[in-house]
Amino acid sequence: MENTAVIIAAGLGTRMKSSLAKAAHKLAGREMLRHLTIAAEEVFARVVVVVGPDMPALEALAAPHGVVVQAERLGTAHAARQAEEQFGEGLVAVFYADNPLVSPATMRSLLARAQAGDAGLVLLAMTPPDAGKYGRLVMEHGYVSRIVEYADATPEERRIALCNAGGLAGKAADMRRWLAAVKAENTKGEYYLTDIAAIAQAEGVKVAALEAPYAECLGINSRAELAAAEAALQTRLREAALEAGVSMLAPETVFFSADTLLGADVIVGPYVVFGPGVTVESGAEIKAFSHLEGCFVAAGALIGPYARLRPGANIGPGAHVGNFVEIKAATLGAGAKANHLSYIGDAEIGPGTNIGAGTITCNYDGKAKHKTKIGAKVFIGSNTALVAPITVGDGALVAAGSTLTGDVAPNTLALGRARQVNKPKRAT
Amino acid sequence: MENTAVIIAAGLGTRMKSSLAKAAHKLAGREMLRHLTIAAEEVFARVVVVVGPDMPALEALAAPHGVVVQAERLGTAHAARQAEEQFGEGLVAVFYADNPLVSPATMRSLLARAQAGDAGLVLLAMTPPDAGKYGRLVMEHGYVSRIVEYADATPEERRIALCNAGGLAGKAADMRRWLAAVKAENTKGEYYLTDIAAIAQAEGVKVAALEAPYAECLGINSRAELAAAEAALQTRLREAALEAGVSMLAPETVFFSADTLLGADVIVGPYVVFGPGVTVESGAEIKAFSHLEGCFVAAGALIGPYARLRPGANIGPGAHVGNFVEIKAATLGAGAKANHLSYIGDAEIGPGTNIGAGTITCNYDGKAKHKTKIGAKVFIGSNTALVAPITVGDGALVAAGSTLTGDVAPNTLALGRARQVNKPKRAT
Amino acid sequence: MENTAVIIAAGLGTRMKSSLAKAAHKLAGREMLRHLTIAAEEVFARVVVVVGPDMPALEALAAPHGVVVQAERLGTAHAARQAEEQFGEGLVAVFYADNPLVSPATMRSLLARAQAGDAGLVLLAMTPPDAGKYGRLVMEHGYVSRIVEYADATPEERRIALCNAGGLAGKAADMRRWLAAVKAENTKGEYYLTDIAAIAQAEGVKVAALEAPYAECLGINSRAELAAAEAALQTRLREAALEAGVSMLAPETVFFSADTLLGADVIVGPYVVFGPGVTVESGAEIKAFSHLEGCFVAAGALIGPYARLRPGANIGPGAHVGNFVEIKAATLGAGAKANHLSYIGDAEIGPGTNIGAGTITCNYDGKAKHKTKIGAKVFIGSNTALVAPITVGDGALVAAGSTLTGDVAPNTLALGRARQVNKPKRAT
Repeated sequence: MENTAVIIAAGLGTRMKSSLAKAAHKLAGREMLRHLTIAAEEVFARVVVVVGPDMPALEALAAPHGVVVQAERLGTAHAARQAEEQFGEGLVAVFYADNPLVSPATMRSLLARAQAGDAGLVLLAMTPPDAGKYGRLVMEHGYVSRIVEYADATPEERRIALCNAGGLAGKAADMRRWLAAVKAENTKGEYYLTDIAAIAQAEGVKVAALEAPYAECLGINSRAELAAAEAALQTRLREAALEAGVSMLAPETVFFSADTLLGADVIVGPYVVFGPGVTVESGAEIKAFSHLEGCFVAAGALIGPYARLRPGANIGPGAHVGNFVEIKAATLGAGAKANHLSYIGDAEIGPGTNIGAGTITCNYDGKAKHKTKIGAKVFIGSNTALVAPITVGDGALVAAGSTLTGDVAPNTLALGRARQVNKPKRAT
Repeated sequence: MENTAVIIAAGLGTRMKSSLAKAAHKLAGREMLRHLTIAAEEVFARVVVVVGPDMPALEALAAPHGVVVQAERLGTAHAARQAEEQFGEGLVAVFYADNPLVSPATMRSLLARAQAGDAGLVLLAMTPPDAGKYGRLVMEHGYVSRIVEYADATPEERRIALCNAGGLAGKAADMRRWLAAVKAENTKGEYYLTDIAAIAQAEGVKVAALEAPYAECLGINSRAELAAAEAALQTRLREAALEAGVSMLAPETVFFSADTLLGADVIVGPYVVFGPGVTVESGAEIKAFSHLEGCFVAAGALIGPYARLRPGANIGPGAHVGNFVEIKAATLGAGAKANHLSYIGDAEIGPGTNIGAGTITCNYDGKAKHKTKIGAKVFIGSNTALVAPITVGDGALVAAGSTLTGDVAPNTLALGRARQVNKPKRAT
Repeated sequence: MENTAVIIAAGLGTRMKSSLAKAAHKLAGREMLRHLTIAAEEVFARVVVVVGPDMPALEALAAPHGVVVQAERLGTAHAARQAEEQFGEGLVAVFYADNPLVSPATMRSLLARAQAGDAGLVLLAMTPPDAGKYGRLVMEHGYVSRIVEYADATPEERRIALCNAGGLAGKAADMRRWLAAVKAENTKGEYYLTDIAAIAQAEGVKVAALEAPYAECLGINSRAELAAAEAALQTRLREAALEAGVSMLAPETVFFSADTLLGADVIVGPYVVFGPGVTVESGAEIKAFSHLEGCFVAAGALIGPYARLRPGANIGPGAHVGNFVEIKAATLGAGAKANHLSYIGDAEIGPGTNIGAGTITCNYDGKAKHKTKIGAKVFIGSNTALVAPITVGDGALVAAGSTLTGDVAPNTLALGRARQVNKPKRAT
């Protein structure tokens, strides 16, 4: 039976004080909406995203999943109902894009609980360290007897630790019927998804609670909450890396992206930032103050300190990228070295080649980008400028301080610098 | 009626183990004394600073406010009394430079409480998370009945949470009379300001307590306490920035100065340090590992990672400053770019100009600094040295690897590099 | 009487998921084993390290102390017994390399307790914030009556806060006899050191507990525990630096090595990393984002931000090393400056010399490293490459943009750059 996840991403996020749609804000380099779609596509056959009107950025983020537009903002039940044609015949779970950290494991548990058969509706629940103003779940005989909003709760009910986390799951046919029955009889005049619990109970259906770790249930309505969720997610990512055998002197200073892949025995120094799309193989070392994104680092490579690897950087086995070096859209062959103060962009560097300090690939002529190709075992002297397009053959040697505008054949010595003149007693 | 703030900054701060006067140590880039004078000048008509003998640095920091010197170190009441000629006829509030985080709002509340009329003396109070050895305020019928030093307190009194935070306020005439009545009958032989509470009560005057947030009352006597106060202040500054709509992936890694100004929707990456005097307009992005001080960044500019903006850097709308780039006393026009490994000092760069990687403005000849002026839509090739004073006209193009010592007219191509020579089979 | 410390470092550390022996992992830049040997050699006349078979790396780390090999892994008592020939006639204390933070002060207290005479065996004890699954010490009349493993403890015993921290001490002759009496009658078939407590008691010997701060007793079996111990150690090092009069805006962002030496009134900015072997004299300032290892910084020097000092960097009094500058195996004379984007390796720079932005010492020719010697009061223009071996005499002046391949006599002006050519209307 094919199950469906409905993700409500229609919120404007006024409290974020941002021109960006709330669900497009990022956590660990990944948009809130994509955290949920990526988790959901592991568990559900179908994922449907409900967006508000005029949110083309969210529609793009939702792809390849289907999108339905909630034209009027009439509440969460109304939003979920927009997707009902895509509910199918299996189970339907509803999640909120501003609770983006629900894990695939929790999604699976939610479905399993709904499939157990005794309860027709399952609510995602949590036990926050401070329950604050969350709605409380009043339990009776192991089932939810009532959801009480904080404002309506008695002092005794406010002492309940188990809170409503927002997500829920039930059978498609039931969900369609319950959603149709929700009324907007409240001060805001909105249709609230939470109300289906009482509707189900009125039909004699049992409502269960499935508790998830609080860190997965963090809600995000302001930038401060976004930062708190980022911190919770970073903690989770750091613990997972340590558990996988990554060595970190100070894990609390390392920032990961949701998709960072590090092999065992990778060593990561303090103050390292991994942007999206980074893979580092076993035994490589990333030293302090390095910044990597969209790059590949092979086994045994040595990166940093102060190295910046930008998208398309491909660092070969045992290669070195040293301090104040930027690599962009460039391949460094096995054992090649660029250790100091260099810019290597749009380039291919062969194995065993040494790039001297202060080397610059001049890849841009003001109009277009051009390529630099350097062979194997080449020695590029320090403070050299390579004006692309340019090719330097295997085994060539470029003298320090040169500016090269033409190709260099293999095993050739190239110079492009002026002769030194000394003028005694003229240093005044 | 003109009210007066007296700030006692005479402490030597022996426990700081520093040659610097205690009140000259900085929090968020601003000296402790100046935190108080800047807050006080928002609230009081007159600010007077009491310093010890031989503290010229503090006198300079106090300016433009008046300074009186406490020639002998005879205690806090004695210090406050040195300023009595400047008390005027309004209210007088006394603060301590080593409790530097009292906010203007709290100062206003203290005056308001003193103006209410029922209490002749108002003490600043606090509820620390751990009351430790602070003096306790014994309250009775809503007024302070006694200040009990920790050493003299009964076990029951030690359980009191409300503590004396040090500051206080009363009418000028009363303050003069009470200060004159303080006696030095204690083991240290000093005149303590706290004693005026009992003196006022002996006259039948009611003493009130005005509670301030503990984070405003942190006292600083050691470097560890200085670091703790810095942390508390940074937390306050980060929360304010988030609240104002600044986007920070990891606010706990961003360091602000007390005067940092960031517009809404500014994006700040991890590990960014804002020194004093920074303004960043809306929509600009400051990437990881950047260090800014004394600079202006216009809307939509992109800074970093690893960018250092020093005093006098003025970055235009949509301009880019990239990795390992230092900008000092230089203007970058709208849309201009200096993306890699460059030093731009004492310069004016026109709009739309591109500064290649490894470009250096040679602004210093060993004796004086000189200016570099580069027009609009200029293309400076990589690894170029511009020996100032020098002017490069609009639309000029400078070849990569050049050293320029003379001016370049508009739309002119300038080269200053040697011709390339290839010597086959000489690379050994 | 000569006392002996036995350090058991035979553990494989499977849970570390590392190819490195557990005791070779580092804390604050120093291997776990060396933390203990360096502490022990302050207190004991003799230090013996017990390693497992095929652990040459540990044998090297143990030097100059003796090593015995535990050929079979038969438990901790068996390991300690391997060293019995070196027990001598004094006291013997046993420590574990995976509890590496025991301080010399605690070691001294342990010996003093054993020397007191009333107790024949002293166990190192601790009170963890969460006692968890540690073995509990049941005390009676001030002595240990029993060590209860968590699994065997009654609920009441589990409420005991005092836990077994692992280390212990007794007289050599007693230790030999007790170790010989340990039996391997347990599920793992191993000889446990802890069992000597019961053996001693059966002889009528009293067993005492010596409590150490929990931070000194942290055990390390996984990378997460390694990271936690690193954090505890960094906290200790930061507090000690503050106490010694070092000024740190944000101590929690500064990483020390165990051997870092900072003078009073040194100022350290946020995000500074000290690798092993760093000494900084009084009044020097290390600005944000700097990375130092194996270097010496004299009084009044100014380092950073973004400075990297590598092994052999020797920075003279009042010298400046600025942003994006790397110094390796090089001496900077008093007042010399290298402020921007430079690489100075294998060099001697005289006092008062100014190194322009973008200067590179070309110390490597692809085969060997060569030296650059620059005299006093030299002015090296920006973007200069110095091809070593090379000597530049006192008072010389090198024009910006030069590549120098030959020596420069004192007071000589040297140029190595092409003449500038302007081609009007050719900038297209």
